[in-house]
Amino acid sequence: MKTKQKTVRISIIGFGYVGNGVAEVIRRKREAIASKYGIDLKVVGIADLKGVIADEQGLSEEAIQALKAGNNPGDMTGLELIRDIEHDVMVETTPTNVETGEPGLTHIITALDSGRHVVTSNKGPIARDYRMLMDLAAKRGRELKFEASVGGAMPIISLVQDNLAGNGVTSIKGILNGTCNYILTRMADENLPYEHVLKEAQEIGIAETDPTKDVEGVDTAVKLVILANSVFGMNATYKDVTVKGITEITLDALKLADDAGYVIKLIGDVDSDGRLEVAPRLVPKDDPLNVCGTLNVATIKTDLAGEITVIGKGAGPIEAASAVLSDIIGLYS
Amino acid sequence: MKTKQKTVRISIIGFGYVGNGVAEVIRRKREAIASKYGIDLKVVGIADLKGVIADEQGLSEEAIQALKAGNNPGDMTGLELIRDIEHDVMVETTPTNVETGEPGLTHIITALDSGRHVVTSNKGPIARDYRMLMDLAAKRGRELKFEASVGGAMPIISLVQDNLAGNGVTSIKGILNGTCNYILTRMADENLPYEHVLKEAQEIGIAETDPTKDVEGVDTAVKLVILANSVFGMNATYKDVTVKGITEITLDALKLADDAGYVIKLIGDVDSDGRLEVAPRLVPKDDPLNVCGTLNVATIKTDLAGEITVIGKGAGPIEAASAVLSDIIGLYS
Repeated sequence: MKTKQKTVRISIIGFGYVGNGVAEVIRRKREAIASKYGIDLKVVGIADLKGVIADEQGLSEEAIQALKAGNNPGDMTGLELIRDIEHDVMVETTPTNVETGEPGLTHIITALDSGRHVVTSNKGPIARDYRMLMDLAAKRGRELKFEASVGGAMPIISLVQDNLAGNGVTSIKGILNGTCNYILTRMADENLPYEHVLKEAQEIGIAETDPTKDVEGVDTAVKLVILANSVFGMNATYKDVTVKGITEITLDALKLADDAGYVIKLIGDVDSDGRLEVAPRLVPKDDPLNVCGTLNVATIKTDLAGEITVIGKGAGPIEAASAVLSDIIGLYS
Repeated sequence: MKTKQKTVRISIIGFGYVGNGVAEVIRRKREAIASKYGIDLKVVGIADLKGVIADEQGLSEEAIQALKAGNNPGDMTGLELIRDIEHDVMVETTPTNVETGEPGLTHIITALDSGRHVVTSNKGPIARDYRMLMDLAAKRGRELKFEASVGGAMPIISLVQDNLAGNGVTSIKGILNGTCNYILTRMADENLPYEHVLKEAQEIGIAETDPTKDVEGVDTAVKLVILANSVFGMNATYKDVTVKGITEITLDALKLADDAGYVIKLIGDVDSDGRLEVAPRLVPKDDPLNVCGTLNVATIKTDLAGEITVIGKGAGPIEAASAVLSDIIGLYS
């Protein structure tokens, strides 16, 4: 219980799924966090396509609802909010663009240049320009954190950097895409063909209307690049990853695997020799990597601790917001 | 890569299995840690039943080997080393005594009173006198860390406190004793009775000559108390835990469970309502808690991140030393 309070002013740039989750989680947890960590989290600005709102005293719930309803577009741009409204942490949750990194890239650069710490769930800028962004953050004396970009609520980057500090990491191998895991699990358990399960996953919102990025392995590959750069100190980009998705996996293949005591999973694999691979792989049924449904999992191979496996929900707005929140608290404790 | 070096002087009290692991890991990793974290770890004193050695310039490998061989008993006591030799961190790795907490308890109190940080793998003092010790550490402005006391290399205390910061934890449930997990796994897989597998486990060093503490659930219960106090802020002791071990589990029971899609595991379970239980439980085969052999596992149920599961090696000198090392680095980064 800390008594001295520090106010931490936050902007949320990108107010979709995850951005809303962050606002919701801060609302729910503000008092508990103040009492436990001595920091008072105050959202002073929100920007998305519908408009931009700001209030240095902290946004009211009414203003946020009006923005959501499209009734309060405000009169500044997102970049003006980042630059001109005094605050401490910019939370970047706009949609990922792997090719350009935009608009997140410009948001992050602007925030660091304006002296804000940055916490993001956005894979694009981190996978594309990791080294440049970390150098910029160091130059500005600010931090750039991105736990939510890989594995949602499942801790992995901070797990290696903090909990396994002192360990050398030789490889990380895991299921980093919940949509693919859901599809493969359903196919195997219900003996249903790929197209059928994909359609069903789209209907219940687990797969997107255009599922390409998930099922072709692109999303897994981008997360692997983030791990390669942040954990292994590489300077990799998406082009360095050998990628094969799950679209050609047949019921026959799953059946053959099952008979031999295996399941088939879409595995991302990065090691300290610089190998980056995404491909369907046979996983023994009793291996910790054999997790079901939309779960994510990663096995981290280390020189001291041996193999550490972590399993958690890879998606969901509150789950991603949980990772964002832990990153924010980590800046001040 | 940090250039400014801070020397961190360390004493190791208790030079058995884990204490040797700590010395070994510091020897192996000293340069890498200096270059990555800017701290130069220097072991300036070691105490165990064979003797006590100290050198404020850092112990030589020869002195350590002589101590191990019983050829260099030195002329001070362990408590004198803790009190009188100037150092920063006391690593306490003497054997656990759940009833008295000794000798670890006196070592830890003396170290905190002498202005040392304490990092320990010793369950006894932490389970018995958690609140008193944390209060003393706070009063002295020093830290008391004990990640290695629960789950060996498997991060759990720091995982909740750091990676899941901001989350409310509703329960932690897991396999916290590798010996029991090994016995139950072998019984189920090989259809061998309890006594047979226990004997085999003793022969290969996985079970102790007197296996009571493991197989009766005492070890799991003590770890649960540490989690209850450190994660849930309780003030529990061993007496608050309902404990049942694995000695009465029959092959029939394992077979029945198997037929129904379950395995039987010795599960420790603590929740925010104050329930503390150790007992054999049915675990669905596809549950993340179903891990084999000597592995440990814990599922942490949270209000934001959902369920996070972590799996790792619960024992082994280098594995425990890994947790000690991460705790030491955490003091300075």
